[in-house]
Amino acid sequence: MVHFHIIKLLIIAFYLRGVEMNQNIESHVIEKREDYEKILSEFGISKIDKILPRIGTDNLFFRRGVVFAHRDFGKILDRVEQKKSFAIISGRGPSNDLHFGHLILYDLIRHLQDKYECKYFLPFSDDEKYVFRKVNSLEETYKLAIQNAIDIFAIGFKPENVSAYISSMTPRIHYLALTFSVNQTFNAVKSALGLSGEENTGVINYTNIQAAHILHPTTDYDLPVVVPIGLDQDVFIRLTRDVARKRKITLPASLYIKYLKGLTGGPMSSSAEETCVFLRDEPKTIKKKIMNALTGGRTTIKEQRELGANPEICTIFDWFSKYFVEDDDELDKIEAGCRGGDLICGLDCKPNLIGMVLKYQEKYNRRKEEVVKNLDRYFEHEIDLSIIE
Amino acid sequence: MVHFHIIKLLIIAFYLRGVEMNQNIESHVIEKREDYEKILSEFGISKIDKILPRIGTDNLFFRRGVVFAHRDFGKILDRVEQKKSFAIISGRGPSNDLHFGHLILYDLIRHLQDKYECKYFLPFSDDEKYVFRKVNSLEETYKLAIQNAIDIFAIGFKPENVSAYISSMTPRIHYLALTFSVNQTFNAVKSALGLSGEENTGVINYTNIQAAHILHPTTDYDLPVVVPIGLDQDVFIRLTRDVARKRKITLPASLYIKYLKGLTGGPMSSSAEETCVFLRDEPKTIKKKIMNALTGGRTTIKEQRELGANPEICTIFDWFSKYFVEDDDELDKIEAGCRGGDLICGLDCKPNLIGMVLKYQEKYNRRKEEVVKNLDRYFEHEIDLSIIE
Repeated sequence: MVHFHIIKLLIIAFYLRGVEMNQNIESHVIEKREDYEKILSEFGISKIDKILPRIGTDNLFFRRGVVFAHRDFGKILDRVEQKKSFAIISGRGPSNDLHFGHLILYDLIRHLQDKYECKYFLPFSDDEKYVFRKVNSLEETYKLAIQNAIDIFAIGFKPENVSAYISSMTPRIHYLALTFSVNQTFNAVKSALGLSGEENTGVINYTNIQAAHILHPTTDYDLPVVVPIGLDQDVFIRLTRDVARKRKITLPASLYIKYLKGLTGGPMSSSAEETCVFLRDEPKTIKKKIMNALTGGRTTIKEQRELGANPEICTIFDWFSKYFVEDDDELDKIEAGCRGGDLICGLDCKPNLIGMVLKYQEKYNRRKEEVVKNLDRYFEHEIDLSIIE
Repeated sequence: MVHFHIIKLLIIAFYLRGVEMNQNIESHVIEKREDYEKILSEFGISKIDKILPRIGTDNLFFRRGVVFAHRDFGKILDRVEQKKSFAIISGRGPSNDLHFGHLILYDLIRHLQDKYECKYFLPFSDDEKYVFRKVNSLEETYKLAIQNAIDIFAIGFKPENVSAYISSMTPRIHYLALTFSVNQTFNAVKSALGLSGEENTGVINYTNIQAAHILHPTTDYDLPVVVPIGLDQDVFIRLTRDVARKRKITLPASLYIKYLKGLTGGPMSSSAEETCVFLRDEPKTIKKKIMNALTGGRTTIKEQRELGANPEICTIFDWFSKYFVEDDDELDKIEAGCRGGDLICGLDCKPNLIGMVLKYQEKYNRRKEEVVKNLDRYFEHEIDLSIIE
């Protein structure tokens, strides 16, 4: 039963990421939009619509459905109305692949901070990378974590609003993980994650570490948390909520976000470089990747001028709408120009996006210099700054 | 196959602890002494006899077979001959039940220290007690660990030769456990420990923590280790050796020790108070327990004077021979006196043992006062001395 739920949820997750699913499976499981909502509600997840009036639509992520669902975020809003604090927690597995697809998450966090004055807890989960064998040693991830920290903070975080730490270097997290380890059986974790038993024991214990990351602001600072996350990662939230329930800790709330489409039309993936633009990409690489992106355009310019193009399947329009074009009127104009044949992908929209990305990158690189100077102020523990090149 | 081995080993272990086994099972598995040795050798365990000339027989534990087997202790002796150091590691799950049955272990460690000038690493495994649900919280075990520390050090340890720590409070151990967690699969741990999968995830991860305890002196101080242990605990050594092999760390050696017989004839167990004498027992309790002990005596004094008694099944003689009577001639005299009917259990041997135990306890209590003054010097980390009553 649990497994079937996971499969359904994964299908929804892939669906939201824009993967072209096998139509038979997809239509079998999610025949109607109502089914999809029913499945979400089985997991205690609600569409964002109902609480949108309480949040407001000033931010495009909420206005345009990039944040499309939530669990218990109403309870966080209750606290806000009672002038009580909460915290945001969102971890990062250190790797050298921070790309524009990650920006939605961090920009959302920054927006929530601006709006609600809440602290952002950022565990760099080097242990996750290690137990899932993405790296050979914990030492390997240290430099990556520091680099990622600079990248993330340069998006616009202030040191006084952030509590970052490298997971394996934070004894309190290990202690909490040990504490929580008695509240999850192997069979429960196995069933939730679909394990075979041949996984290393670190993978199993990582669910305890992750619960520690998520609940640490609540247990140690009395701050209920919200976790902005992709729906495909929700299983970890559910495992953590199960621990929290058993230990009588306030359950973590969550906000579900859609991902940016990959430039080739499928999901964005760091391991498929052509699907994404890395924050550290050279301008010429950025230009090349975007110029090669999948759009809803026609075969020839002539044809497009006559028949118009389709923004719904266009990756460039997806990036405009989910992230780069804040102004609704401007977005409407782009959409109309696209449909009406006034805008040509390679002549208008792609160069337009390239300009936006490069402008972002330029500002961003300037902010990075500032971040490096204050890097230690973002961290809960001492860090070795000498490794920054 | 692995399971069958474990069953055989457990049978040997119980056999050595003096449990009366079901004769059918026992005789089926261990028909002859040679079989028993063959089983040991399958696990890479050798009888102590062959290396006894290198160790010497000045200590009664070696002379009388209380230390009856070993794995790789020859390699430790090689180091000794090369004037290289090694370390002893033996943990203690904090509880309020330190009894005379534990003294063999600690006295052996002290003897090895005197002889080889080696450091003793003593992890107090509060995490073990916690994940196996012997306590409800890690905090509960803190006071017990400190009390146990005093009890153990008062046996005669010097602060400069001991490196004690409370496991959950030692970040380095958690870090090592995380490191080792990728080298043990759940299925391997399951098979070794006979788990069902319904155990909490802390139990599974504890094998990594235990490997960290055992290998910490080797990874961090370049000191190969020897673990003095009961044969029934050998599975943890084998799991740790497996980790060490994969990580190219010097494999831990081990020394296998026999337990003192419980006073009622079966194995000694803290949960069956009448089987053991606690170090903190009142003198009148000690007297009562020993006076009620099972011996090899006859029904009446008259009969015993005529026919003699049987020291082989006598718990009092077991305590004399394994711990309290150092002098071989004296022990021979006791044995002869017992067999010849000159000694009467309740008139001679039991009062004799009571005297020895009380004398030990008196000296021991004096040493405890000294230990308390220096307690912090035994520990790797800060401890809160205010909790000592």
